[in-house]
Amino acid sequence: MTKRKICVVITARPSYSRIKTTLKAINAHDKLELQLVIAGSALLGRYGNAVNYIEEDGFVINEKVFMVLEGENKTSMAKTTGLGLMELANTFYNLKPDAVVTIADRFETIATSIAASYQNIPLVHIQGGEVTGNIDEKVRHANTKLADIHLVASEDAKRRVVKMGEDKNYVFNTGCPSIDIAFQVSENRKLNFDPIEKYGGVGKHINWKDGYIVVMQHPVTTEYKKSRENISKTLKVVHDLGIPTFWFWPNVDSGADGTSKGIRAFRETYQPENIHFFKNMKPEDFLRLLSNSRCLVGNSSVGIRECAFLGVPVVNIGTRQNGRLRAHNVLDVSYEEKAMKDAILNRINKPNPMSQSDIYGNGKSGNLMAEILANVDLRFHKTIMY
Amino acid sequence: MTKRKICVVITARPSYSRIKTTLKAINAHDKLELQLVIAGSALLGRYGNAVNYIEEDGFVINEKVFMVLEGENKTSMAKTTGLGLMELANTFYNLKPDAVVTIADRFETIATSIAASYQNIPLVHIQGGEVTGNIDEKVRHANTKLADIHLVASEDAKRRVVKMGEDKNYVFNTGCPSIDIAFQVSENRKLNFDPIEKYGGVGKHINWKDGYIVVMQHPVTTEYKKSRENISKTLKVVHDLGIPTFWFWPNVDSGADGTSKGIRAFRETYQPENIHFFKNMKPEDFLRLLSNSRCLVGNSSVGIRECAFLGVPVVNIGTRQNGRLRAHNVLDVSYEEKAMKDAILNRINKPNPMSQSDIYGNGKSGNLMAEILANVDLRFHKTIMY
Amino acid sequence: MTKRKICVVITARPSYSRIKTTLKAINAHDKLELQLVIAGSALLGRYGNAVNYIEEDGFVINEKVFMVLEGENKTSMAKTTGLGLMELANTFYNLKPDAVVTIADRFETIATSIAASYQNIPLVHIQGGEVTGNIDEKVRHANTKLADIHLVASEDAKRRVVKMGEDKNYVFNTGCPSIDIAFQVSENRKLNFDPIEKYGGVGKHINWKDGYIVVMQHPVTTEYKKSRENISKTLKVVHDLGIPTFWFWPNVDSGADGTSKGIRAFRETYQPENIHFFKNMKPEDFLRLLSNSRCLVGNSSVGIRECAFLGVPVVNIGTRQNGRLRAHNVLDVSYEEKAMKDAILNRINKPNPMSQSDIYGNGKSGNLMAEILANVDLRFHKTIMY
Amino acid sequence: MTKRKICVVITARPSYSRIKTTLKAINAHDKLELQLVIAGSALLGRYGNAVNYIEEDGFVINEKVFMVLEGENKTSMAKTTGLGLMELANTFYNLKPDAVVTIADRFETIATSIAASYQNIPLVHIQGGEVTGNIDEKVRHANTKLADIHLVASEDAKRRVVKMGEDKNYVFNTGCPSIDIAFQVSENRKLNFDPIEKYGGVGKHINWKDGYIVVMQHPVTTEYKKSRENISKTLKVVHDLGIPTFWFWPNVDSGADGTSKGIRAFRETYQPENIHFFKNMKPEDFLRLLSNSRCLVGNSSVGIRECAFLGVPVVNIGTRQNGRLRAHNVLDVSYEEKAMKDAILNRINKPNPMSQSDIYGNGKSGNLMAEILANVDLRFHKTIMY
Repeated sequence: MTKRKICVVITARPSYSRIKTTLKAINAHDKLELQLVIAGSALLGRYGNAVNYIEEDGFVINEKVFMVLEGENKTSMAKTTGLGLMELANTFYNLKPDAVVTIADRFETIATSIAASYQNIPLVHIQGGEVTGNIDEKVRHANTKLADIHLVASEDAKRRVVKMGEDKNYVFNTGCPSIDIAFQVSENRKLNFDPIEKYGGVGKHINWKDGYIVVMQHPVTTEYKKSRENISKTLKVVHDLGIPTFWFWPNVDSGADGTSKGIRAFRETYQPENIHFFKNMKPEDFLRLLSNSRCLVGNSSVGIRECAFLGVPVVNIGTRQNGRLRAHNVLDVSYEEKAMKDAILNRINKPNPMSQSDIYGNGKSGNLMAEILANVDLRFHKTIMY
Repeated sequence: MTKRKICVVITARPSYSRIKTTLKAINAHDKLELQLVIAGSALLGRYGNAVNYIEEDGFVINEKVFMVLEGENKTSMAKTTGLGLMELANTFYNLKPDAVVTIADRFETIATSIAASYQNIPLVHIQGGEVTGNIDEKVRHANTKLADIHLVASEDAKRRVVKMGEDKNYVFNTGCPSIDIAFQVSENRKLNFDPIEKYGGVGKHINWKDGYIVVMQHPVTTEYKKSRENISKTLKVVHDLGIPTFWFWPNVDSGADGTSKGIRAFRETYQPENIHFFKNMKPEDFLRLLSNSRCLVGNSSVGIRECAFLGVPVVNIGTRQNGRLRAHNVLDVSYEEKAMKDAILNRINKPNPMSQSDIYGNGKSGNLMAEILANVDLRFHKTIMY
Repeated sequence: MTKRKICVVITARPSYSRIKTTLKAINAHDKLELQLVIAGSALLGRYGNAVNYIEEDGFVINEKVFMVLEGENKTSMAKTTGLGLMELANTFYNLKPDAVVTIADRFETIATSIAASYQNIPLVHIQGGEVTGNIDEKVRHANTKLADIHLVASEDAKRRVVKMGEDKNYVFNTGCPSIDIAFQVSENRKLNFDPIEKYGGVGKHINWKDGYIVVMQHPVTTEYKKSRENISKTLKVVHDLGIPTFWFWPNVDSGADGTSKGIRAFRETYQPENIHFFKNMKPEDFLRLLSNSRCLVGNSSVGIRECAFLGVPVVNIGTRQNGRLRAHNVLDVSYEEKAMKDAILNRINKPNPMSQSDIYGNGKSGNLMAEILANVDLRFHKTIMY
Repeated sequence: MTKRKICVVITARPSYSRIKTTLKAINAHDKLELQLVIAGSALLGRYGNAVNYIEEDGFVINEKVFMVLEGENKTSMAKTTGLGLMELANTFYNLKPDAVVTIADRFETIATSIAASYQNIPLVHIQGGEVTGNIDEKVRHANTKLADIHLVASEDAKRRVVKMGEDKNYVFNTGCPSIDIAFQVSENRKLNFDPIEKYGGVGKHINWKDGYIVVMQHPVTTEYKKSRENISKTLKVVHDLGIPTFWFWPNVDSGADGTSKGIRAFRETYQPENIHFFKNMKPEDFLRLLSNSRCLVGNSSVGIRECAFLGVPVVNIGTRQNGRLRAHNVLDVSYEEKAMKDAILNRINKPNPMSQSDIYGNGKSGNLMAEILANVDLRFHKTIMY
């Protein structure tokens, strides 16, 4: 029997943790063959070299595609997408997949969507239907309109995709595979490694063993100029509080340099005693670190999703996660100094775990996705339902 | 007072007739400044050299962008779009428009949409909300999800755009500017030129003065392999009927060569006595030719829109215009020989004009669009309405 | 033992016949592994679908790269090259060859040269050192300056490459592999197929059995506007002479449409009784056809090279082959009607074969090239010798 | 009278200082009109934002072209070049210059050369004919073979360009315009600004007033992996010597991150007391700083050229400047710790200025270049001279 060739395109580190268990399940499925394309910032050391983790996890990469342009403005985002589209068109032409999977809503994911749909290759979109309030939302919904099959992460998202005119027979609430990793961690939460010893990082060697917080703050694309201002505010608050802190570098983004410069300048000036900086960490290790932390601070979607399942207290700052379904672990706050401090103090006084929630999945998403990919009608022709 | 700079990107001949009166109205408006970018097949002789007509009409072109890849498969459509995106990103960066206008649903229009929206330039999409049943529909709705402001051509389209989650305060039914040209023609329908004398073309010098039909048939992208088969069927039927015929070459498209080859092969073999072939014609002249014809045959959207207003009888073949609102002038038919013949005979016995309809506009769309562009809130940040 | 991976990039039909026996010899060599990349016009039906012949000949293609832009001006040549460079960079990154081979002097060959040399992959250039007097010459010599190893086709070419500052230890006169095919044909020259029956083509079914000429005329890039004028002159002369003629369509080129349009217009107007047109022919069949013709007319390099070995009389028109070493078979002529007629009449009165010459190779080039590729020091670092 | 439109493309900070006085002379010339295109790393903050200095100097920029790809390997160099080629082709098509100027030998300069020469725009190459011993040399000589007119910086270079087969009537020894700036500085060498106050930079506030050295070390492309090792060696030596030092960040390059990471890691670990780091400085200020230093250390071409004219003592490390003509100011040394220390000690004991030399120009190059550009025959058709 010929296996269905499922081509998954991963363009950034966070996308990998949202698909990893699905990749494993595809590899294990007797009706499916995995074609893995690693592209964009997932190939770059400056953004955490996701490609290394992927290879260490034993996946075979069919093609690597360099496509990220340098630049401090939004022009480079657009050009990166155009370049990715040209290259991925050729990649799909040569790999001849039966279906292509595009993940979520980063700006370059639409390159995957166009390259597949224009070539009449059935397009599977993961994590459509969510609401966030910036360019990501435009990209996500445009991906939905180009996609033929939708694997969404919550009932809320499913409802929205169907309302946009998609055929409900092709919209599946699978939950998010990132929860599968959280599920494994939740089975045994012990912190079985020394973060600094294992990952190095830069900055002071903080005393984390008696409790620490984790910070991860990304630039918000449509508030480009504010990236540096925002990161500086969070840095000041965390520095002032003096709580031992593991701080994670942001992903590539048009404002990445604004954020990165903010961090570098702060370190240069203050050499903060209570903050240690990491570029990257294996997803399991990262979730285990969160699971043993006092809270997560920032604007990462991990706070909304994985932390919901794990019950990790979260301070979510600013507008980046606007409109996304939340569980009780999340406390929202603006970039106002006093408010941020209060919110962090509130959260570190909660137990970890707080109550757990399966609104983003129950830990079996990878297998469920593979099963759907093996059996769904692979259409590439659709029309709006109204 | 600073004028709003409105950058309009035209990538193909048919797009020009759908925006021409708007371009004039922008130029005439004291709050607006036109930035005109001509790209893609609009620059190529093989597809009718639209650029020449645009310059003859007195418009100043700010930038020309070559972006069309050769190829007989869909890969070239995807790559053309990627290349266009890269170039247009730079173009907009250098022109710094206050808003960008993207037109309709051709595959490369999404390049304009991405290049603008990723750079936080307010994006105006023209002719969203329609239904057609192939890749164009995916592109059109994706354009809608990237766009901030929607100028649609019918109430039906408006309803659909709003249902997709767009804010109804930013969705305007302006009608289609192509109807403005039809309106002018309808004021005086006389055929004031000799088509063969004025446009040359190839094939026999047919006796058109006692009545003729017009054929315009484009390839249907998702039925790529059928392009040649379909064109051959239509050619056979039209040849068999023996009615004097003006046949228009198709636009660029992934299947263009299939269609073109079909036409060339047919001409080579049969040297049809009753068919004269044109590559292109000025929109006004084309509408005047239709207005004096016995009917239009094929799958062009002109049959659905302009011919609705003019009341020209139309035989619409196949699926290309599926789901588009029709007036009474249109008779739909499949690619079945007997059915096509009957349909043509039915239509040529109708008066021209049949009853006229303003479902696609009342002839004032250009001015209305300019007025909206001058006054609308130029937002570039939106969220889904549910 | 690890085999050396030799990546050969073929971007056009004529390049294939100049490397085919080398490809076979690489495949047969126990120290070499062939990586074959087919790109550019070699993939396009409009330019003869070389890819089909390559696959029919049993070669396995590692990657296909679509890169040709449409257009009627030189801008598209430059952009095609840029696109090819971007894609080939990725291709080489993924294939990891030990050496890359770029062929001759077509404009897009420099994309291969840059993609390899910038990545420190040893670059082998075939057919450097020749003189032709247009943009091809700039490209060819630039390829030489980027290349590490030179396999040239004549002593004259070798002398020139060394004079340009290349190390003579890395410059090898191998002759041209196209002569290997000519050698096989020369062993038995019988025309063992009916050209029209086997290849179809278009135009009148000429009576070729009592003698015919062959015409192949390409546009000359730097005389772009003259392409149509030139082709029209040759067409008129050949038509007037009334000799049965097989005419071959030109390759892709910036002026291709000028030439093609000239041919189409001429056919439309005159329906010439004595000319049959082909798009393409297998190299062996083409040489066999030449070998049985009364002469070759046009500006193809086949007239200079293969015809030298085979002794076929040639009328070489215009400047395209300026500066290339000639044997006695070639009669040069300008685009002057009377002169062209006289030259053709002169040549068809020569015997075929006239005297044979091995100035471009002795028929063993493919094996010799493979042997050098297996043993040469694969350097990628060089400096000018003065 | 119509002025000749001269389009100069600047892709990096160091190229600007090599052309600045020519730009002024073109602007001042009554037969010339300047078209200025800023591209590549010249637009990026990470590489010194050359574009800001250019605008501050009062030049009007016609077009900005983003083209630099991120990446830690050589693939990104090749792709950057391909992207630049595609964009510049369009830029030249729209600007319609009478001649295009490409500068020196950075990898992306060949994009300018191809975009111009393929469109039959006369190409002027500046600084051909030099010898350096890495990929730059391949690029430089390939530029020479694509160029129609050569403005070289020394007699030695002129001799080499002519030997490569160029027509000596189109090869002009103009000297290097960077010497024009050195000439102005040499008229009054006083250090009229406080470097740290004016430019900020990072690192300790060193006591430079009693004497300092300057270091500028770039990665060497073909020794990619050694970039970090080399920079670490130089850092150690300079740190050990304890002499107050101004250290300049390297330009963009495939190994830039290797070098940059080496510098960051060293600063993190040692927080060197005697080194202050700058990203960039105005060319005049930089030369003035050199003119008052005890010596320049590193592998910058400024040491070979401008320092020859100014008589600044130079320690030139490694192979990057191999084969370039030197004056007496330069002491060459390998990456060997003891040798480097000795060489620096030797040079700081020389007077500054040592003897001055005009081997790279006499300070009037900008005007001379403009005069040639105004009067030279703008050919775009050439052939090799042997």
